[in-house]
This record gives sequence, structure tokens and C-alpha cells, in this order.
Amino acid sequence: MENPFFKNHGPFKLYDICKILNIKPDAKIKNKIVYNINDLSNSKNNEITFFHSKKYKDQVNKTKGSFCITNKKLVNDLPETIVPLVVDNVLLSTSKVTTIFYPESIYDHFDNSVKNISKTKFKNRVSFGNNVLIGENVSIGSKCKIGHNTIIEKNVSIGNNSYIGSNTIIRNSLIGNNVNILDNCNIGKHGFGFFPIKNNNVRYPHIGFVIIEDNCEIGCKATIDRGSMSSTVIGKNTFLDNQIHIAHNVKLGSNSIIAGQVGIAGSTVIGNNVKIGGQAGISGHLKIGNNVEIGGGSGVIRDIPDNSKVMGYPSKNFREFLRENK
Amino acid sequence: MENPFFKNHGPFKLYDICKILNIKPDAKIKNKIVYNINDLSNSKNNEITFFHSKKYKDQVNKTKGSFCITNKKLVNDLPETIVPLVVDNVLLSTSKVTTIFYPESIYDHFDNSVKNISKTKFKNRVSFGNNVLIGENVSIGSKCKIGHNTIIEKNVSIGNNSYIGSNTIIRNSLIGNNVNILDNCNIGKHGFGFFPIKNNNVRYPHIGFVIIEDNCEIGCKATIDRGSMSSTVIGKNTFLDNQIHIAHNVKLGSNSIIAGQVGIAGSTVIGNNVKIGGQAGISGHLKIGNNVEIGGGSGVIRDIPDNSKVMGYPSKNFREFLRENK
Amino acid sequence: MENPFFKNHGPFKLYDICKILNIKPDAKIKNKIVYNINDLSNSKNNEITFFHSKKYKDQVNKTKGSFCITNKKLVNDLPETIVPLVVDNVLLSTSKVTTIFYPESIYDHFDNSVKNISKTKFKNRVSFGNNVLIGENVSIGSKCKIGHNTIIEKNVSIGNNSYIGSNTIIRNSLIGNNVNILDNCNIGKHGFGFFPIKNNNVRYPHIGFVIIEDNCEIGCKATIDRGSMSSTVIGKNTFLDNQIHIAHNVKLGSNSIIAGQVGIAGSTVIGNNVKIGGQAGISGHLKIGNNVEIGGGSGVIRDIPDNSKVMGYPSKNFREFLRENK
Repeated sequence: MENPFFKNHGPFKLYDICKILNIKPDAKIKNKIVYNINDLSNSKNNEITFFHSKKYKDQVNKTKGSFCITNKKLVNDLPETIVPLVVDNVLLSTSKVTTIFYPESIYDHFDNSVKNISKTKFKNRVSFGNNVLIGENVSIGSKCKIGHNTIIEKNVSIGNNSYIGSNTIIRNSLIGNNVNILDNCNIGKHGFGFFPIKNNNVRYPHIGFVIIEDNCEIGCKATIDRGSMSSTVIGKNTFLDNQIHIAHNVKLGSNSIIAGQVGIAGSTVIGNNVKIGGQAGISGHLKIGNNVEIGGGSGVIRDIPDNSKVMGYPSKNFREFLRENK
Repeated sequence: MENPFFKNHGPFKLYDICKILNIKPDAKIKNKIVYNINDLSNSKNNEITFFHSKKYKDQVNKTKGSFCITNKKLVNDLPETIVPLVVDNVLLSTSKVTTIFYPESIYDHFDNSVKNISKTKFKNRVSFGNNVLIGENVSIGSKCKIGHNTIIEKNVSIGNNSYIGSNTIIRNSLIGNNVNILDNCNIGKHGFGFFPIKNNNVRYPHIGFVIIEDNCEIGCKATIDRGSMSSTVIGKNTFLDNQIHIAHNVKLGSNSIIAGQVGIAGSTVIGNNVKIGGQAGISGHLKIGNNVEIGGGSGVIRDIPDNSKVMGYPSKNFREFLRENK
Repeated sequence: MENPFFKNHGPFKLYDICKILNIKPDAKIKNKIVYNINDLSNSKNNEITFFHSKKYKDQVNKTKGSFCITNKKLVNDLPETIVPLVVDNVLLSTSKVTTIFYPESIYDHFDNSVKNISKTKFKNRVSFGNNVLIGENVSIGSKCKIGHNTIIEKNVSIGNNSYIGSNTIIRNSLIGNNVNILDNCNIGKHGFGFFPIKNNNVRYPHIGFVIIEDNCEIGCKATIDRGSMSSTVIGKNTFLDNQIHIAHNVKLGSNSIIAGQVGIAGSTVIGNNVKIGGQAGISGHLKIGNNVEIGGGSGVIRDIPDNSKVMGYPSKNFREFLRENK
């Protein structure tokens, strides 16, 4: 799938990519053409990928990418068919290469392609409020409503029977059918990812997007950041209360209920039928199973298996928490 | 008092209500007329009410309602003068009946009755900013100010000397005198109440409203949800800091101070002269007394008696908390 | 430095100030002229200052102020060259005097001096969205972008290459170069400071401002309140994630990273190279050192020395926290 939101400025010669990474390519391959950058599972022939942790060893054996940014320690785990590009800092190098392919993904400058909806083809198809702005190439299904002062930026797609509230900004997002997004939300901005460098941090490009599946409700004042390379996903029929923060790459399953002021840090994956109480916080890069209940105010810092009920900071078995806190 | 915000689409014949509930009414009463739905304490003659928990036994004996949705276990506690409607799930059934009386209360679609304030009678009476939208039948007292891009939806009433900031949305609310509501607030949207049903949750109608009494201050980015059947209340001279979430049916007393990022879950009732520190969270359906102090970051999961000072998660006596955490 | 945001309505005769404080000035000095009010370290000759706690004994010996509001217990610590004004409640009295010098600092009424940016001198110098409002005497550097519906109030100054998102409100703030302020932020409103008085709290005037230094990023939905008498400061190259609350007078150092939903209470001072995890809360009036790491969800209620790593509520040594919570 072509990235619907960010223009691929490639292809580039391998030679040019190596120059950015400060490495010398073998003369035989320096004129090879690199068409895109992608993660291990999604990269294809003539694309570049990256391998930065043993965790992803399984994926590296299955990747279809032709070139791979990695480091000295990991290079021997690469299949022989893949051209290794050995660097010191894999993620920083990946960031640099992503930036030349997708330079527009670093900043979230406002979309200056927008027009008042009354001057677009949606004029008679959508029920809309005052001062609604729609970017180029937006798609909106039938029977939708869009509230006052809301901005739908370029290339966003919205299904049928969906309702977007007032003062909401949506960018880089694919919204399903029967979705309710309430007032003052920010959906699809870049995640909080960068390389801390003294006096001048280097921003990480975020080329992923946000997917909100059918029948979801997103409460007022949500911030749902788009993915870095993959997507941030809110599964079917999952309801979010007010003031919730969902960081980049998070995947929420279906039929889940998330109460007010919950925060979920980057890249955490959560199963189906999950209930999360108000103000709970979940650390990044965790795996939370299906049918899990997390009590209000909990701080989750470890994976949680299916069918568990936890509470506390750090969270523990629910009964144990109650017993210790009679 | 007639509901100032939602039109009552009744009356309905008892026969029609029973049909929705899948029960057969006695032939003698099936043509009786039902004028409204209300909770036990507010329902009147020829209105329908509901009784779903032993907790409300006192109220059921005093109710003036003529019909009552209840279940097998509770039906014997009903006074003989009331017509029982026995169902499996009282709240779901109540929700269905409320929905036919007040169908507009389920969704919070933007108010399309609004006009730019400069085209209303408030043009010369209110000091206002750019792009202010006012709905039908709004009432605003003397010496008020309303900031830029703010939306006051239909039927909202605002007292004298009150100040509404910029980018704020107010609906289904009664605002007193000398009230300060700062920027980017959402006051009066429906609460986070619904019946979780696989693939397609059923929304609960919220026909209550928000009452903000005289001399209050509501900080930036508050979300204060309206009540389900009764109201959400902020008592006199209570001040809220930024980023606070007040769920549906919550009652805050007077002269209280709530610091930033506090969250209060649904139906909790809080007394007067209460202080709540930053980021504290209070579970739903609790009773917090007068003159209570709750330390910052606390998680309150039990009732708190008058004159207590607590801190911790879960919260405990303040001195005990400090002793255990020297 | 003259206050760039609030007009000084002075000077006043000492006699008039004493009248407000309900004290009788010595006949010899009652006609002296008082030009301004300031804190101990910033007040100058012919200005009034205040001394309300032994903590500030060092500063009282160095102050250049001519008059000083203080109480019976502290008056003997005042240098003889300073005219004492002895009252019962130093802060309330200071508030009253500040109010006569700076009456506009108490409320945050919307700026009615704003014009659409297309009608200002910035029309061809700044890249801007729809419905952008700019107040009087605003200064904006070169190569800046300002998103849709954003309001920059009077006297705000913004450096070069800075980007302000959409739906953001900035007042009483000095913004540096290369600063990114994302969507829906509220920067520079008054802090949550007032004297609780039954039925009618008295607001504290906030005459300080917000300073955001070069290369910072402020995430969506931040609230950063201005200082009461000094300023609230975000140091160079410090990055804030979404939904963060920074209260009045807080100073954040440089090169720091603050994750989502963090809250920092009033007057806390934080060093450089600090990392704060998501949802952590920091009490007011604390001193957090350099190179400190605070784990997600922590509640910090005591000072933290340089180079510490803490977690927990209340926060403790990080290893100890993990050991106790295996």
C-alpha cells in the first residue's frame, strides 16, 4: 500500500543513502536503486529496512527488503541475500534515511490546502457547521456530520454515518463507519519521538497513520498520535472517554472501554474486550492480553496476560491489591 | 420543571412502552397515558420511573411516579399503588424508554441553530470576540464577555457578570452569576454511559444538564459532562484549575478548590469546603464529606467522612500515609 | 525591565497604599512616591516589595526596594533603610497592592485588540492559516508559520523559524527561535492563585509571564500558566509531549524531556537534562536537580538532588522501588 499521507520523494541511489550514513558502499552495488523504506515485515524487494534489536530476529529472516540498516553486533544475523549497511546508531540512521524519503513527515505544519467546506464537493453531501475546513483529496462517506471550526486535513478518509464534533483536528487518519469523534480532539499528529541531542534535538519522522475502526467513540480532548512507521489503531466498537492520550504505534483491540484521562505510551499493544479505569497509565512497548481489566489509577509497567484483573502502581493482581489495602 | 434542553416527544400509551420492553400490559391499563420519565425522587403522577437497586428503597416509598420499571427481585418492595413493569435489565430498559421520550439526548450532534452573535439580540448587550456562535433561545445576563470562537448552544442560560473564554463549547448548561469559564472548555456534553454490546454498544440517553452556580471558576480545558437523568453540579464559589474532568451526575459542593488534572468519576457526591490536590482521581458513586482534604495524586476508592484529610493510592489517613512513606 | 504585558497604573503616594492596607503611615513619609511593586530580588529604589517567610532572609538583606510589606514576626529582620509596612496577612496585602498597580492582571478577558492577520503587517511575512487573530503590538520573526484559528494576543513576541499550530491561544508570553508549539495549547493565562474567602474568593493578580526558550517543542493541549510576579520558564531545547500542565512560576531547565499528561505544580524549579515519565505529578515549591530521571506515574512530594533516578508515589530511589515491587 502506498502511503496515503506522505509523498515518497524516492527512489534514491544506494550511493546517496550511504553518503548520508557516512559509509562507503561497495562499488558494484552503489548504483542500485532504493525505492522505499519500511519495517522488516512490510519492506519489499528493492526497499531498505532496519534491524536494531535481537527481538526482531524472526522477522529479519522473513523480510523481503533488499537492504538493511543494522549494527556490528546484529549484522551476522542478517540473511546473506540482504545488503547490510552497518552503522553505529541504527535508529538515528533509519531516521535520517526516512527523512530523505518523506521530508514532510517531520513537522506537522498546518495544512494550507484546506478550503471552507461550502466551497467543496461535500457542500450538499455532509451536514456541517460554521468555519469547517477540508483539505485536498479528503474522502467523506454518506450521512456524516462535521461540527463547527473542525479541520479535516488532506487525504484523510472518513466512512459513512460518522460524526465529527466541533474544534477537532484530524490529519493522517483513516476513519471507519459509524465513528463518533467528539469535540476538541487532535487525531493524527506526529508522535513524541526524537533523538535527544544537546541544544538541538533531532526529530524522528513519523510516516505512519491513525486507523479508527467502525463503531468507535472518541471522547472530547483526545490526543491520538500517528504511528512512526506502522499505524496507531483503535479497534472496532472501542469507546474512549474524555482527555485520553494514545501515543504513536499503540494498537487497541475491539470492544474495549477506556475511561477518562487514561494515557497509553508508545508501541503498546492491547487485546480485545479490555476495560481500563480512569487515569490509569500504561508504559510503552508492553503487551496487554484480551479480556483484561485494569483498575482506575493503575500504573502498568509489565505485560499482562489474557483474562487478568489488575490494579495498583505498579499494577498487581486485583484481589492482592485489595487485600493489601483494606 | 420541564427539561429546558431536550424536547419530550411523549406522551406515550403504556401499551407502546410495554411493547418496547417486550412485556404484556394488563388489558385494563394498557391505554393509560405516560407523560414523562424521571428518577424516583423527581417523577410525578402519570410518569414512569425506575428502581434497580435496594439502595433506593427509601426513595421508592416516597416516589410520586405512577409506573415503575424494576426486576423480579425488587418488585415486592414497590408500593401497591405503583404499576410495576418487570424486566430483566432495569437500566437497559430505562434507557430504551428514555430514548423514545428524548431521542435527541443520545448523540451530541453540533447545534445547527447557531448564528454569529453579531446577528443576534446580544449584539449590543454582550462584549464578544471574533466568530462567536449563539444557539436559539440562549439567555445571557448583563455585563458578560464571551471570547473568540466560543459556541453557546441552544437553550443555555448564563447569569450576570459572567465571563466565558475563547474556544469554549457550552451546551445543556445553566450558568450562574460571576462565573468565569476559561478557554477551551467542553461543558455539558453527554456522559460516558452506554451498554457494552459486542460490535455495537448501545448509547445511554443523557437528559440531565450541568449547573454551575455563582462565583465559580472553571480552568482551561475542563470537560464537565451533563447528568444522565439528574444534573451535574458545581457548587457556589468552587474553583477548578486546568485540565479537570468531571463526569456525569457528579455534585461538587460550594467553596471547594480542585487543582489541575483531577478526575472525578460518575455520580460521586462531594461536600463543601473540600480541597483536592493535583492529579487526584476519585472513583464513581462515592460520597465525600464536608471539609475534606485529598492530597495530590491520591486515588480515592471509598467514601470519606467529613473533616478528613487523606492521601495515597488507595487513599488513607494523611498522617498514616506520611508515616509509612518517610 | 518594564512589564511588557501589563500597564503599570502607578505611581501612587505611600499614603494611598497605606489606606488600602488599613495602616497609618508616619506623617513624615506619607507623601513619598511608590513607583512599582516587585519581589525582593527585583525591586528597586522607590519601589515596594514584600517579605512573608524566613526562607527569604538572605534576599531581604540584598533588596533594593524602599518599602516592604511584612508582618510582626519578620519586621525585625528588615534592614533599617527600608520602610516597613506591617500587616496581618502579607500575601493578601501584597495582592491588594499589586492589584492597584496592575488591575488588568487579575482577569484573563479575551484580547479585543485582535485583528485578522491578513489585515496586519504580518500579511506577507508569516505563513498563516484561516481565521488567525493577532493582537496589538505583537512581534513575530522571520520564517514563522501560524495554523488555523490561532490567537496571538497583544504584546506577545515570537522569534524566527517558530511554528505555532492550530486552535492555540498565546498571551503574556515571550517565545524564542525554532520553537514548535502544537495544536490546542493555552500559553500564558493567569495561574490558579487566589485567597479562598467564603462565597467569594479573591483573585491574586498574576503579572509575570511565560518564557519559552529556543528550540523547544510544546505538545498538543498544553496549559502553561504565566508567573505571579516572576515568570514561568521552559528552558532551551526542552520537549513536552501532549496534555501537559505547567503551573505558574515553574522553571524547567534545558534539554529536558517531559512525557504526556505530566503535571507540575506552582513555583517548582527543575534543573537541566531532566526526564519525566508520563502522568508523573510534581508538587509545588520543590527543587528538582540536574540530570534527574522521574519514572512514569510518580508522585514527587520532596526535593530531588542532582543525578537521581526516582519512581513511585511518593517517589523514592528507582532501584528500591523496583526491589519492593518485583
